[in-house]
Amino acid sequence: MTAKPAPGQTDPVAIDSASGKAAAAAPPANPLWGGRFAGGPAEIMARINVSIGFDQRLYAEDIAGSKAHAAMLGQQGIIEAADAGRIIAGLDRILQEIEQGCFPFKAELEDIHMNVEARLAELIGPAAGRLHTARSRNDQVATDFKLWVRAALERCDAGLRDLQAALIDQADRHAATVMPGFTHLQSAQPVTFGHHLLAYVEMFGRDRSRLRDARARLNECPLGSAALAGTPFPIDRAMTARTLGFDRATANSLDAVSDRDFALDYLAAAAIAAVHLSRLAEEIVLWCSDLVGFVRLSHAFTTGSSIMPQKENPDAAELVRAKSGRLIGALNGLLIVMKGLPLAYSKDMQEDKEPVFLADDTLGLCVAAMAGMVRDLQPNPTAMRRAAEQGFLTATDLADWLVRVLGLPFREAHHITGRIVRLAEDGNRRLAELELSALQAIEPRITAAVFDVLTVEASVASRTSPGGTAPARVREAVNAARERFL
Amino acid sequence: MTAKPAPGQTDPVAIDSASGKAAAAAPPANPLWGGRFAGGPAEIMARINVSIGFDQRLYAEDIAGSKAHAAMLGQQGIIEAADAGRIIAGLDRILQEIEQGCFPFKAELEDIHMNVEARLAELIGPAAGRLHTARSRNDQVATDFKLWVRAALERCDAGLRDLQAALIDQADRHAATVMPGFTHLQSAQPVTFGHHLLAYVEMFGRDRSRLRDARARLNECPLGSAALAGTPFPIDRAMTARTLGFDRATANSLDAVSDRDFALDYLAAAAIAAVHLSRLAEEIVLWCSDLVGFVRLSHAFTTGSSIMPQKENPDAAELVRAKSGRLIGALNGLLIVMKGLPLAYSKDMQEDKEPVFLADDTLGLCVAAMAGMVRDLQPNPTAMRRAAEQGFLTATDLADWLVRVLGLPFREAHHITGRIVRLAEDGNRRLAELELSALQAIEPRITAAVFDVLTVEASVASRTSPGGTAPARVREAVNAARERFL
Amino acid sequence: MTAKPAPGQTDPVAIDSASGKAAAAAPPANPLWGGRFAGGPAEIMARINVSIGFDQRLYAEDIAGSKAHAAMLGQQGIIEAADAGRIIAGLDRILQEIEQGCFPFKAELEDIHMNVEARLAELIGPAAGRLHTARSRNDQVATDFKLWVRAALERCDAGLRDLQAALIDQADRHAATVMPGFTHLQSAQPVTFGHHLLAYVEMFGRDRSRLRDARARLNECPLGSAALAGTPFPIDRAMTARTLGFDRATANSLDAVSDRDFALDYLAAAAIAAVHLSRLAEEIVLWCSDLVGFVRLSHAFTTGSSIMPQKENPDAAELVRAKSGRLIGALNGLLIVMKGLPLAYSKDMQEDKEPVFLADDTLGLCVAAMAGMVRDLQPNPTAMRRAAEQGFLTATDLADWLVRVLGLPFREAHHITGRIVRLAEDGNRRLAELELSALQAIEPRITAAVFDVLTVEASVASRTSPGGTAPARVREAVNAARERFL
Amino acid sequence: MTAKPAPGQTDPVAIDSASGKAAAAAPPANPLWGGRFAGGPAEIMARINVSIGFDQRLYAEDIAGSKAHAAMLGQQGIIEAADAGRIIAGLDRILQEIEQGCFPFKAELEDIHMNVEARLAELIGPAAGRLHTARSRNDQVATDFKLWVRAALERCDAGLRDLQAALIDQADRHAATVMPGFTHLQSAQPVTFGHHLLAYVEMFGRDRSRLRDARARLNECPLGSAALAGTPFPIDRAMTARTLGFDRATANSLDAVSDRDFALDYLAAAAIAAVHLSRLAEEIVLWCSDLVGFVRLSHAFTTGSSIMPQKENPDAAELVRAKSGRLIGALNGLLIVMKGLPLAYSKDMQEDKEPVFLADDTLGLCVAAMAGMVRDLQPNPTAMRRAAEQGFLTATDLADWLVRVLGLPFREAHHITGRIVRLAEDGNRRLAELELSALQAIEPRITAAVFDVLTVEASVASRTSPGGTAPARVREAVNAARERFL
Repeated sequence: MTAKPAPGQTDPVAIDSASGKAAAAAPPANPLWGGRFAGGPAEIMARINVSIGFDQRLYAEDIAGSKAHAAMLGQQGIIEAADAGRIIAGLDRILQEIEQGCFPFKAELEDIHMNVEARLAELIGPAAGRLHTARSRNDQVATDFKLWVRAALERCDAGLRDLQAALIDQADRHAATVMPGFTHLQSAQPVTFGHHLLAYVEMFGRDRSRLRDARARLNECPLGSAALAGTPFPIDRAMTARTLGFDRATANSLDAVSDRDFALDYLAAAAIAAVHLSRLAEEIVLWCSDLVGFVRLSHAFTTGSSIMPQKENPDAAELVRAKSGRLIGALNGLLIVMKGLPLAYSKDMQEDKEPVFLADDTLGLCVAAMAGMVRDLQPNPTAMRRAAEQGFLTATDLADWLVRVLGLPFREAHHITGRIVRLAEDGNRRLAELELSALQAIEPRITAAVFDVLTVEASVASRTSPGGTAPARVREAVNAARERFL
Repeated sequence: MTAKPAPGQTDPVAIDSASGKAAAAAPPANPLWGGRFAGGPAEIMARINVSIGFDQRLYAEDIAGSKAHAAMLGQQGIIEAADAGRIIAGLDRILQEIEQGCFPFKAELEDIHMNVEARLAELIGPAAGRLHTARSRNDQVATDFKLWVRAALERCDAGLRDLQAALIDQADRHAATVMPGFTHLQSAQPVTFGHHLLAYVEMFGRDRSRLRDARARLNECPLGSAALAGTPFPIDRAMTARTLGFDRATANSLDAVSDRDFALDYLAAAAIAAVHLSRLAEEIVLWCSDLVGFVRLSHAFTTGSSIMPQKENPDAAELVRAKSGRLIGALNGLLIVMKGLPLAYSKDMQEDKEPVFLADDTLGLCVAAMAGMVRDLQPNPTAMRRAAEQGFLTATDLADWLVRVLGLPFREAHHITGRIVRLAEDGNRRLAELELSALQAIEPRITAAVFDVLTVEASVASRTSPGGTAPARVREAVNAARERFL
Repeated sequence: MTAKPAPGQTDPVAIDSASGKAAAAAPPANPLWGGRFAGGPAEIMARINVSIGFDQRLYAEDIAGSKAHAAMLGQQGIIEAADAGRIIAGLDRILQEIEQGCFPFKAELEDIHMNVEARLAELIGPAAGRLHTARSRNDQVATDFKLWVRAALERCDAGLRDLQAALIDQADRHAATVMPGFTHLQSAQPVTFGHHLLAYVEMFGRDRSRLRDARARLNECPLGSAALAGTPFPIDRAMTARTLGFDRATANSLDAVSDRDFALDYLAAAAIAAVHLSRLAEEIVLWCSDLVGFVRLSHAFTTGSSIMPQKENPDAAELVRAKSGRLIGALNGLLIVMKGLPLAYSKDMQEDKEPVFLADDTLGLCVAAMAGMVRDLQPNPTAMRRAAEQGFLTATDLADWLVRVLGLPFREAHHITGRIVRLAEDGNRRLAELELSALQAIEPRITAAVFDVLTVEASVASRTSPGGTAPARVREAVNAARERFL
Repeated sequence: MTAKPAPGQTDPVAIDSASGKAAAAAPPANPLWGGRFAGGPAEIMARINVSIGFDQRLYAEDIAGSKAHAAMLGQQGIIEAADAGRIIAGLDRILQEIEQGCFPFKAELEDIHMNVEARLAELIGPAAGRLHTARSRNDQVATDFKLWVRAALERCDAGLRDLQAALIDQADRHAATVMPGFTHLQSAQPVTFGHHLLAYVEMFGRDRSRLRDARARLNECPLGSAALAGTPFPIDRAMTARTLGFDRATANSLDAVSDRDFALDYLAAAAIAAVHLSRLAEEIVLWCSDLVGFVRLSHAFTTGSSIMPQKENPDAAELVRAKSGRLIGALNGLLIVMKGLPLAYSKDMQEDKEPVFLADDTLGLCVAAMAGMVRDLQPNPTAMRRAAEQGFLTATDLADWLVRVLGLPFREAHHITGRIVRLAEDGNRRLAELELSALQAIEPRITAAVFDVLTVEASVASRTSPGGTAPARVREAVNAARERFL
């Protein structure tokens, strides 16, 4: 077996730089912190240490944070206004270079912060060296990453809102489409397809509230905490916090640089949302199975088989179901990284970014794919209704009738219903097809009025308790959901 | 090796019943749902299915929920007022029996709900059978468990508040006690012990806000969702919600019985809090090590060795550190249970309780043990100060001075500082012990004023930025923390 | 909500002692290691530190290890032969007391080792004090726990063997029972039920090989490593290893007391086995659903509903599926506990036992329940065959025929088959029901011989490649599986 | 905040193709399985479904598997020998193209299998269509991935062997270098640095045995299982198995295509190895701390600080410690993916590759970095010895002397030692510095001979039990380890 890396093999060092330099070759001593280092780091050290391959995703946040810091330094007279101006103009140019794809990323500069700073020095000369006044990479990276996670929370919220919209629209169309409701995957009681879909609207609504909570908890600005102890410079932390859209500055500098709760909050919310998505995905896989046939997905969301031409595989639903594993694994992984870390910053915390980036990519993909599938899916009301009519799903309605009309205690009604169901089962008939006399042989007080509750339509229509499956309730719930969520 | 179970071996069936009946012996057909079941369940089925061994912890919540339901049924005229009264009185008596330890729990009745209901029938006769009107075990258990988790959230909040109080008191005492601040476990800059402890006050403050968010999100009442579809009885869900302290009734009956987000939210909050506890625990283990000697725990929180008499082992801190593994595992486990479950209720969801109970026990123990340790720990300011004076911890202060006073760009100041540090290191001296001339040989503009910033006291005193480690700031932060958290 | 603990609430301190003493009340200073401790540990310390509530499950192993150690000390002349004899007799009596349920476990003695040792001192006097010569709790607990895990591995192997036996018997009976084979839960090709069940025999066979590997890797004896450094006493480690059934003594004393790989190996094997069980459980839940109806479980493995009398819920299968979450969580938890622990023993490692005990209980229950269900399940060959005949499952057979008989490249055969399937689908007919002329309109060279491969029986009978689903192959595989596994 | 993706943002669709085509633009219907699909998949479907971005790492295995299959088809007369020859030649050319970086990977062809097959058709025409005879993507991908994992197991074994070599060499040099041995991070007994390092040699030895077990269990060939049911073609599975280095063909076709145990085995072994690495990494971080100073890493494995010029941060060790989180997360994630999947193939299983690739990259990096650090680290024997002489580390030696020489029961010796330690502690003296009379005041039978065991050298030299820390034993162990592992 070849050991040679495949062309597409992930290389933790290689970066898309214009220079194309072999980044893993032992680089020279880092020009920024290498002042007293005699030799350069070993090649393997370079490979394990470098983060520019992934943390360049923070470029916009890094530049925004530096601009806010420079403006504050200028206003407070910590650096000269002209220097602040030069720094800000240089950063704007760097932003442009990156967005135009012509920024020369260099692995030997390790991370996005160093890459930006080194380029700034090329562009504006010595004034660049003043940007790091009253700041450290520790508070800088915490700020950058918080800004990035905040945007990810917002992206995720928007995606879930769109998924809710897709669900609500389908629910509206199918507020009265009868299907079996299941417990233990056994048909239990008739419900409507609209009612079923709205259950997911609630789940994704809780997910969104979780994202909102995470955003509110995150929204304190670490900038100005410096390495870990604060700084003697007369900085204005309220100003930088405000500029960057934070509610306030963090209260403790040691905590500010060693906190990654915001990433954990995001990953926890993502993992729970992924579990919700996996539940809906499981149902879609089931419903699409030719054993069940409740819904069909168009070819936009299914694939064929290389050997079985008749297959329409719900690949997207299966992938959404599976990706919950990756997302739970990402949360788990970062909890483990943070476990037992002494204060303040440890390099372990560099492992915070890749799980979060993975979660953002993965969850974004899953939510969009699910919204697409929900819009795409074509229910088969005939198949649903047929299934709802098998399996004695109105047995509970019968029991409830015995309680309501005959005044039996529920437990006694339950026993009588059990005997009637057995009778129907033995005779291979539906409950509605039994003869009155047969029912009366079991419970003499039963009247013909009982048949009014034994159809699936009557069953769903009767369940008018708040949150219940009656079509009228479902239509109300659709409107309420539009109001609450869209 | 014996295969015989040890006396203490956990037996998933055995319960502390007065009867002492061998619960695992195949019980007779369940009297409540066994109407149409010819035979009884197999012994192994009984063992895997039974939950009374753990879900009896829900007894108070089960009774509260049933009382609220009975009162509502009575008020709505769904059952007679007299029956409602009898049910409530019977439930009160059961509560008393359980709290007095004389309730006859029976494994063959499977769970707490059946145990209570069967006892109610013994106590008040047929009227007991009316309690289950317009209700199912599905909405009942969701309600019970939400009530239980809500109380657990509140217990946890109270525990964390007490831990914060302990930390704030120590921080207040040591607002000016100098110790090294670390990054990468390398001494970095002097901080104060008070400042360090306040970092944890922030963490536990975020934990408490997470618990509050979870409580708010949880606080919708599932009762009245029945099995999954709602009910035709004219129930008043707002009334039961109000009685049980919920903000409102849940919006969708399918979601209400299949939702376990509240347990996941609690476990996520517990896991993150456990990570915070593990960080402080790790530091206590380090600080107590005879290699470091920053703090000492009394014998109340250490143990000796059976073979090494000189040891004072910080067992409690190590256990707190370790138990984060169990708590992360509990979160992970329930996420896995819920992954891919179709709606509505599946028996899988019975696996929700034990992780939550474990988390409540474990986290309660860890938080209390940590509060005890924080109150118990006796810092050794001499050892801390000695460590802070080694390792050139005021190098940053020197660099900052070069920037502030001489107006050097930060990066240049950094390089000069690096050379001065190497000089001190080579001569085995502290920075404050170098001669002015030696400094000037590296940077001629340095004056004697620089020595003002090179002591650890000067260093901490200078870091007056908001959230910084200056004793004055720490004292302000102590007061602010009292205000915000206690 | 009451804060009072429910009677059944797990109490980490309370033990089933005859004395019934409130164990959590702050106990006096530990008599064994408390020599230089002025005060007793705090109550919360006692609660977090005590392990007798769970580690008493190690009693038989602890006594076996101590007997082996005492015999060796006697033989080597490290203690007098008479003392060794007294110790062994005392330990035998303790074993008897524990197995008869009359041993006075005491929480204030913390763990099983101290309980046994203290009782030994009561029974035989000062000679008891000689047992701990050349031994420490560190090597003692490692030895005990290894012995326990070894027995758990053997129990698990026996359980899985029985499950394989159940599967093989069913497979034998249904070697020719045709059902649809699925990919993506879409019917793909006909297989036999026996073939399907044998897939699980392979999985559980790999699980057993994993257990065997874990047993072989575990089987080195830590006893004699003492606290961490070995001992100056002239012990015979080979003798104790041999007595306890180990292959050899461990090679490094520091590793011996800090290693918990054997617990991780067991938990990893358990987690993977649990995943296999969850897959079969998922299939049983699906097959039992009234939507599918492939199998039925008797009332021995299903439960009814309190409100829906017609339900037959596959609770045991759902619980088996769910419990994989707990088992994966247990593995995950112990990996986290061990992460980053410095050598040698840390108290964190006391957290190793509960996950392992939970895994043993849980996995034992799941394997036994699954074996019960497999024996219990009654396939419905009619329903299976009907499903196999829908959905064009012999499309691949058609494609293969085009390749084999007409010599078409596979990809071309695939395209032609796709067109024929669409024709059948549009006409709502099975492949075998199409007219030859219709087939020839798509591919003129097709002859009537093609119909020989279009029935599901012909399809399964044709798949005679090794490991294939042809009934003859399945019968061979049944015999081979009996040979390999039973 | 910008929503625009950063240039370096991972794009699950984009591939390094020469064409540079915007791969995410909705591609046309897949030419291979799209026969009966009217429209093309939606863009989001393409993005979630495509795997060529990562599964191209399987290229060499895919080609090897196809060559073996083609050769077998030719030998069995299933395809013509000339076609087999053309196919093999074409595959060889594709291998060359890929390794030379000029293969035109296309996202619209989804995966490596389709890319290779489509290119083969371009190169050799219609004969390419015969390669898929008696094969499916399901057995093909299982075979490819097993081959890849097998190579990863071998790479990992080689890396760990090199790490063991580095440890053994250091252990050899420091077989007699005295340092404190710790339990609970409290100094316990003197050990040698060589002895300590050999503990890790044992751990990594167990890791290697775990990899060997996984390799043996994996080594059955799925090829010929076809989609799930086997095939009617007269294939020779033994031949393809042999050609690809497998021990035999898999026994059950359904299992063969749905099994991912081999990936789980690898990830479990990787996670446990990562935990071992994290323990050593934690120790290196501790030892490098200026609080401890036991070892120093050169600048090849440390970094400086942007603001604290005196820092030498052990970044590589911290990253190795942290990356255990990612590896445990990867195992956890795949266990979750596989949980509850019905047979046979589900698309969920496409999520198997990225965690395995991540583990291979990460573990490779960690093992190499650790080997580098172990070779690089320079112990400070003076600091180690000084620490070993503090803290009464020979207390156990004193207790052992009381047992051996005076014949006291161990427990009594322990109590006496405790009192002597307290005496020394109160007088701020080492045990060896106490006066004989003071010792005799506590235990009159103590003689001057006791002082022979109270030095750290005497202590380590005395621990000659097998596996003990005596330098002579350590040297033996070094030789034995060379024999067993290198």
